Amino acid sequence: MSNPDPAGRFRAVRGRTEALARPLSPEDQQLQAFPDASPTKWHRGHTTWFWETFLLGPAGVAPAHPEWAPLFNSYYESMGARHPRPQRGLLSRPSCAEVTAWRALVDERVETLLEDRVAREVAAPIVALGLAHEEQHQELLLTDILAAFEAQPLRPTWGPAGPAATLAGDDGFTEHADGVVSLGSATPFCFDNEGPVHDVFLRPYALGRRLVTVREWAAFAREGGYETPSLWLSDGLAWVRTHGITGPAYTHRDGDDVWVFGLHGERRAAPDEPIGHLSFYEADALATFLGGRLPTEAEWEHAARGRTDTRPEPGAFVPTQSEGGWFGSLWQWTRSAYSPYPGFRAPSGPIGEYNGKFMVNQVVLRGSSCLTPPGHSRPSYRNFWPPATRFQATGLRLARELD
Amino acid sequence: MSNPDPAGRFRAVRGRTEALARPLSPEDQQLQAFPDASPTKWHRGHTTWFWETFLLGPAGVAPAHPEWAPLFNSYYESMGARHPRPQRGLLSRPSCAEVTAWRALVDERVETLLEDRVAREVAAPIVALGLAHEEQHQELLLTDILAAFEAQPLRPTWGPAGPAATLAGDDGFTEHADGVVSLGSATPFCFDNEGPVHDVFLRPYALGRRLVTVREWAAFAREGGYETPSLWLSDGLAWVRTHGITGPAYTHRDGDDVWVFGLHGERRAAPDEPIGHLSFYEADALATFLGGRLPTEAEWEHAARGRTDTRPEPGAFVPTQSEGGWFGSLWQWTRSAYSPYPGFRAPSGPIGEYNGKFMVNQVVLRGSSCLTPPGHSRPSYRNFWPPATRFQATGLRLARELD
Amino acid sequence: MSNPDPAGRFRAVRGRTEALARPLSPEDQQLQAFPDASPTKWHRGHTTWFWETFLLGPAGVAPAHPEWAPLFNSYYESMGARHPRPQRGLLSRPSCAEVTAWRALVDERVETLLEDRVAREVAAPIVALGLAHEEQHQELLLTDILAAFEAQPLRPTWGPAGPAATLAGDDGFTEHADGVVSLGSATPFCFDNEGPVHDVFLRPYALGRRLVTVREWAAFAREGGYETPSLWLSDGLAWVRTHGITGPAYTHRDGDDVWVFGLHGERRAAPDEPIGHLSFYEADALATFLGGRLPTEAEWEHAARGRTDTRPEPGAFVPTQSEGGWFGSLWQWTRSAYSPYPGFRAPSGPIGEYNGKFMVNQVVLRGSSCLTPPGHSRPSYRNFWPPATRFQATGLRLARELD
Amino acid sequence: MSNPDPAGRFRAVRGRTEALARPLSPEDQQLQAFPDASPTKWHRGHTTWFWETFLLGPAGVAPAHPEWAPLFNSYYESMGARHPRPQRGLLSRPSCAEVTAWRALVDERVETLLEDRVAREVAAPIVALGLAHEEQHQELLLTDILAAFEAQPLRPTWGPAGPAATLAGDDGFTEHADGVVSLGSATPFCFDNEGPVHDVFLRPYALGRRLVTVREWAAFAREGGYETPSLWLSDGLAWVRTHGITGPAYTHRDGDDVWVFGLHGERRAAPDEPIGHLSFYEADALATFLGGRLPTEAEWEHAARGRTDTRPEPGAFVPTQSEGGWFGSLWQWTRSAYSPYPGFRAPSGPIGEYNGKFMVNQVVLRGSSCLTPPGHSRPSYRNFWPPATRFQATGLRLARELD
Repeated sequence: MSNPDPAGRFRAVRGRTEALARPLSPEDQQLQAFPDASPTKWHRGHTTWFWETFLLGPAGVAPAHPEWAPLFNSYYESMGARHPRPQRGLLSRPSCAEVTAWRALVDERVETLLEDRVAREVAAPIVALGLAHEEQHQELLLTDILAAFEAQPLRPTWGPAGPAATLAGDDGFTEHADGVVSLGSATPFCFDNEGPVHDVFLRPYALGRRLVTVREWAAFAREGGYETPSLWLSDGLAWVRTHGITGPAYTHRDGDDVWVFGLHGERRAAPDEPIGHLSFYEADALATFLGGRLPTEAEWEHAARGRTDTRPEPGAFVPTQSEGGWFGSLWQWTRSAYSPYPGFRAPSGPIGEYNGKFMVNQVVLRGSSCLTPPGHSRPSYRNFWPPATRFQATGLRLARELD
Repeated sequence: MSNPDPAGRFRAVRGRTEALARPLSPEDQQLQAFPDASPTKWHRGHTTWFWETFLLGPAGVAPAHPEWAPLFNSYYESMGARHPRPQRGLLSRPSCAEVTAWRALVDERVETLLEDRVAREVAAPIVALGLAHEEQHQELLLTDILAAFEAQPLRPTWGPAGPAATLAGDDGFTEHADGVVSLGSATPFCFDNEGPVHDVFLRPYALGRRLVTVREWAAFAREGGYETPSLWLSDGLAWVRTHGITGPAYTHRDGDDVWVFGLHGERRAAPDEPIGHLSFYEADALATFLGGRLPTEAEWEHAARGRTDTRPEPGAFVPTQSEGGWFGSLWQWTRSAYSPYPGFRAPSGPIGEYNGKFMVNQVVLRGSSCLTPPGHSRPSYRNFWPPATRFQATGLRLARELD
Repeated sequence: MSNPDPAGRFRAVRGRTEALARPLSPEDQQLQAFPDASPTKWHRGHTTWFWETFLLGPAGVAPAHPEWAPLFNSYYESMGARHPRPQRGLLSRPSCAEVTAWRALVDERVETLLEDRVAREVAAPIVALGLAHEEQHQELLLTDILAAFEAQPLRPTWGPAGPAATLAGDDGFTEHADGVVSLGSATPFCFDNEGPVHDVFLRPYALGRRLVTVREWAAFAREGGYETPSLWLSDGLAWVRTHGITGPAYTHRDGDDVWVFGLHGERRAAPDEPIGHLSFYEADALATFLGGRLPTEAEWEHAARGRTDTRPEPGAFVPTQSEGGWFGSLWQWTRSAYSPYPGFRAPSGPIGEYNGKFMVNQVVLRGSSCLTPPGHSRPSYRNFWPPATRFQATGLRLARELD
Repeated sequence: MSNPDPAGRFRAVRGRTEALARPLSPEDQQLQAFPDASPTKWHRGHTTWFWETFLLGPAGVAPAHPEWAPLFNSYYESMGARHPRPQRGLLSRPSCAEVTAWRALVDERVETLLEDRVAREVAAPIVALGLAHEEQHQELLLTDILAAFEAQPLRPTWGPAGPAATLAGDDGFTEHADGVVSLGSATPFCFDNEGPVHDVFLRPYALGRRLVTVREWAAFAREGGYETPSLWLSDGLAWVRTHGITGPAYTHRDGDDVWVFGLHGERRAAPDEPIGHLSFYEADALATFLGGRLPTEAEWEHAARGRTDTRPEPGAFVPTQSEGGWFGSLWQWTRSAYSPYPGFRAPSGPIGEYNGKFMVNQVVLRGSSCLTPPGHSRPSYRNFWPPATRFQATGLRLARELD
C-alpha cells in the first residue's frame, strides 16, 4: 500500500461526501424512499461510524457518541445491535447539524492519527478500504436521494444540469478470439471479492462498442417486448406481471418521446443516449430482443482490460457514450450470478463481512456509472445487486456469440 | 353562531398549533412513524389548506400555492387528487420554513376577511368547524410525534414534565336508574355526527367514578389476562396472538413496576393513575376481567351530562383522575360501534365528507384526553377509532349491570 | 322446550345434511376455496363433533375418534387445540367414507340416548341448539361449495335447476309510523344474541316491499356507481379500489345482460330478480344511489313481525321475490353493526362462545336466503358477517326516511 | 437415439407413475400442501397432457379432452392459458377416475403410434424427453405428497418401510489435483442445460467420501449454529430469523434424538445417516461449521465421473451412504448458481421453455435422491432449486481447499 498522501486523499474523499450533501436540506437528508434505501444523513453518519469503529477504535480512540453506534452500523453482525434498516428514515436524532459536527471531529482525529508514520503504516489497509467504502456510499447517497426526489410531487432536484454528455456511440462490435484469460485483481487496493486471480476459458465472442440506447429500448417497448413471454426469464416475466412494469425506473414514454427523471429534474432523453435504470430482467430480455445476450463477467472484464475512468469530477449526472461508456456512464448487467471466485476466502474479523456474505441471489454488474465517484472503479471491480434492482444507474452492453 | 370574537379565537387556535410544533426541529416535523400517522409539518400544512380551501376559496381568495393542494388534502375525494397518505413522511418539500410562511400568510388573509362584518357572519359556520378541525389536528400532532419519538433509540422528548396530575381516584360507582334519556347535541357548534338529538331507553346501570388504573391492568397482565381466551372477543384474541401483544402501547412491566413512555420521556407509572394506550380489544377484556363491562355511548353520555373540561392549558401531557377523569385524561372506549344516529344525514358538499363516511368498522370513544386541547370536547362528542388503535391516549371507565 | 318429537327432528336435520352432500364426490367434499371457507367433509365432521362433544360427552359417552377432535373443533377455545382453519382443505384423512360411518355411529348413539325420557329432557336445550347449529352448517356447506365450484375452470354444478322462482316484485314501500317497538325474542328456541327483549324508539320510516333487483344494480354499475366516491363509505371505496371490484361475486355484466353463477351453473339473470352476493359496502352504496338507505335491524325486525319462511324444501337455490322476499330469498344487509343487545350476557360454559365473542367488526343481516334451510330463521334472527363478505347469498331491501 | 424398445420403456415409466399413486386415495391425490407443490392427480394429468401435446398433437392426434389443457399445462407460455398454479388443489374435476381413464387412452394411442417404425424414429427425441419429464414428475409426486402428509395431524403414510439402507459411510476425503476438466454432456439423451461440453480450470480440492450426517448436523444445532451469524450468508441469516428456523424440514431434535418424518412415517434417525431436507442456506452454513465448504458443480461432476445409480427399484425412500451416496440418497447442494453454460442456447419451439428460462435465482444440486427414479440421473445432471427450498430430499457433501 503506497498511497503517497493518505491524509490528503482522506480529506478529499470526506470532503466530497459533504459537497454532495450540501445542496440538500436537513429535511431532504432524512428521506428514505423505500426500505432498502438510506437517508443522506445516515450515509454521512455510517461512513463516520466506519472510521471510528475500524480505524480509530483499534488505535485506542473511544467513540465520540457510543450511543449512536447501533444507529449507524449497517450490517456488521459482529459489531453489535443495529437499528432496523427500514426505519432509518425515522431517525430525527441526531440532527444533521450534530452529524456534521461529528464528521468534523472524526476527521480531525483521523488526520491527527495519520500524522504519525507508524500509525499511518499500520492503518494503511483500513484507510484504503475506508476510502473505497466512503466512495460507495457517495454513490448510494445519490441514488437514494434520486429515489426520494422522484417520489415527491414537487420533484425537487439536486442541482442544475452541467455540460452535456457525449451521446452518439459507435454501433460496431469488437470480436474476441477464444482462449484462456486471467480474471480478477491483486492490485495494491481491491476488494476481497475481486480475487483470487484465476484463469478462465472463453469461447469466441463479440462485445458492443457502446451501451444499448434509449432508441433500442423504445423499439422493444413499442413492439410489445414487455408482453412477449419468449423474451423473458421466468422470474422476470412474473416480476413484470406482478408489478405491472412497462419501462425502467424514472422513465416513461410519451408518444415518440422518452422522458427521464434525474438529479437535475425531468428531461427528454436523446435517442442515442444509454438507457438506464433497468432491472437485470429487463436487460436480459432487451438483449434477447436485440438478437444478442448479456456478456458474462469474464467476457466483460477481458474486454475492458486497460480501460479506466478518466472523467473529471462530473458536472452532469447523466449517462454518456463517451469512450464507449465502459466507465462513468451506467453499470452494466452481466449474465453472471454473484459467486465466490475459486479459492475465495473472506478475510477474518468484522471486515470479513464486507462482501462474501452477499454471494447469493445477486447478479454481477461491471463498469461504473455517472453517479460513481471518478476513479472509483476498475476492470476487475464486481458490483452486485438483486435482479429486480432499478434504482441504481444500470444499463447494458450487448454481447454476441461468434460461431 | 355567536362567537363574540371569532378573530381572536382564530388567532388563539392557530397560535396554539405553532406553539405545539415549536419544540420540534424541521427533521422531527417530517417524521411519520406508521402509515396512518402524519408528520407535524403535514398537520400544520393540512389545517392551513383547510382554511384556504373552505373559507378563503369560497370568499374569492386564490390559494397561495395551488401546487401544494394535492399534498395537504387529507381525504376529501371531491376536492381532487391526493398524495398517498402512507408517503406523507417522504415530503421534504415544502420545507418547514415554507409552511411557517404559508401559515402566516393565510392567517393574515383570514383575519383580514374576518374584519368585515358580513363576511364574518357568512363564514361563521366554517370558522367554527375550522377551529374544531384544527384542534383535532393539534391532538393528532401530539399523538403522531409521540409515536415517532418512541420509535427512536435516542428517545427524544417534546419537553420536560410539568406539575404532577391528580392520580388517586374515587373507587365507587354511581348508579343510574332505567329510563328514557335524550342523546346527542344541537348546541351552537357541534359535529354533524352528534345529531340528531334522539331518545334512547336505558336499563339501570352503574358507572365507575374514576378510570381503570395501572394497578388493575397490571393484575390483569400478571394473572395471564392476555392468554385467557374467555376474556376476549374473538377478533381481539386473534389480534393479541398475531402481534404478540403483552400490554398497551408505550408501556412495559418490569417486575412490579410499570413504565410508560410519553411526551416527557419514560417514567414509572403510579399504580393509581389511569392506564392508557389500550386498544378496544384490551379495554373490553380488561373490563371483563374486572367483573364489569364497557359502557355504551348512551350510558356514558347520560352520566356525563353537565360536565366540562375545566383544565387550564396543560403543562403535563399525563392522564389524571382529577374530577373523575371524564375529560382531559384519557379517551374512554365504549361498547358502541360508530354508527349514524337515527335520522342522520351528512351535510351536502365536501364538508359532508367530514364524519359520515367513516361510520363503519370503528368504535366510539367518549370524553377527551390529556392531549386534547382544553375545552375541545363535550358530553355529546363522539370520537371513533378502529378497535386495534393504541397510539391515541385511550383508557376505559367501568360499567356494571344493576340487576 | 317442548319439541314433540326430538328424535324425529334430529333424524330429519341430520339426514338433510347428508342429502346436501350426496351429489358431491369425495374430491369435491375436500375443497376449500378460500381460508374462511370449509370443505363439505369438514362441515359434516364438525357437526358430528358438536353432537359428540356437547350432547354425548356430558351424557358419559366417550368420543368414537378422540384423535379427530382437534380437526373438527371450529373455534371453541375452551375445548382444546384446533387444526388451523385455513388448512382444513389439506385434510385427506379421515376420508369421506370414514366421516360417513362416524355420522351413522353418532346418529345411532344420539337416537338411543333420546329414547330415554329423562335424558331427553336434560338434553332438550342442547338438542335445540345442535339442530340450529347443524342447519347453519347446511347453509355454509352450500355457500362454500359454490365458491369452490366457481373457482374451477370446468364449473361443476351441485345439480340441475328446479322450478323457477317468482321474480316480479311489488315496487311500493310500506310506511311505518314512529313509536316504541319491542325488539328481540324469547321464543322456546332462539340464539342467545336475539335477547334480551328490549324496547327501541323508531322514527317514521318506509321499507321496500321487495328486494333490490338486478335491473337496479345494473343501472348503478352502468352509470359509474363503482367510481363515484360520494356514494361510498370510506372503507368501502378503499375496498373497491384495492380489489378492483366491478360487481357482486359470481356476477358479471355482458352488454345489457347480467350473468350469475350458482349451484345450478351459469345463467342469465332476469332483470326483476333480486341482486345477490353483494358486500355490505356495495349494498350501502347501491341504496344511496337509489335514493334510499339500508334499514336498521330494528326497522327491519319491526316490519317483519309475523312473517315466516313458508317455503317447501327448495328445489331451486335461486333468490325469489315471492312474499316480498323477506325469507328464503337473500339475506338483507342492515345499517346496524353487530353489537350486544342491552343486558346481553353470554351463557356460561363453552356454549357461551357461540355468538357473543363475535360482536365486533361485523354487520347484521336479517331474513334468510334461498340457501338457508326452510324454517330455520325468524324475524328476530340476527345473522352477521364482516362488511366485505360476498360469498354468502346477500342482498338488500331499501329503506326511506319519512320526513 | 437408439433406445432398443421405446414402447417397452414408455410402458414401464408410465406404469411406474401409476404404481406410485396407487396407495393414495382420490382425496390424497388432490392435496396441495403449499403454492409451489402440486397434487398427485395433477402430476398424473400433466404428464399425460405432455404426451398428448408434444407427441400425439404433432402426429395429428387430437386431444381427448381439449378443455382440460389449461388445467394441466404447467408453464409453457407458448401453449396457451394456464390455471393458476397455487390453485391446482382446488380442482376436483376431472376426478381421479377420469384421469386414470385418460392416462389409459393416451397410453394406448402412444403405443399404437410407436408401432410404426417411421413415426417412432421421428418421435424418438420427444419420447426420450417425455420419459425423462415423467420421471421428474414421479419424484415431485413423492415430495409433494410427503409435504401434504406432514401437514396433517393424523400423519398418513405412503406405505410401510422397506429394507434398511446402508448408513455408515467412509469418513475420508478424496483429493483431486488441479487441472483442466471437461464439463457437461453430449450423451444420446441429456437435458439442454447439460451442454455444451466445455473445459473448466479446477484448483486442487478434496471431496468427502460420504454425505454429511445427522450427527454432524445435530452438533451444529446443539452448538448454536442457527444463532451464529458468522456461519451464514446474509440472506440465509435473514431467512432463519424470519421463519424461526431451527432445523431441516420434517426434522426435529428431542434431547439427543433426531426424528424425521418420511413417506413411511416418523422414525428416529440414525446418527450416521445423511441429514436431509436442508435449504442451501443451511447446507452452506453447516459446511462452514464443519470446516469445509460446498463444492462447485464442476468439482462435483469431475469427482463423480463414471459413477451411476445402481439401485434397484427402491423399497425404502430413505437416504443411504451406500456407494458414497453419490446417487439415490440425497441431492447435494453445490456452491454454484444455476447459470447457462458458455454457448448455451435454448432449443427453439415450446420445448425451449424446458430449462433455460429458469436460469436465475436458483442453485445447482447434483446427484439424485432416494425419491428419484433409479437410473434417472447421471454425473452431468443439473438439478436446481431456489436456495430456501427444503421440501426436496436435499443434503450435502463436504469440499475442502487443498492449499
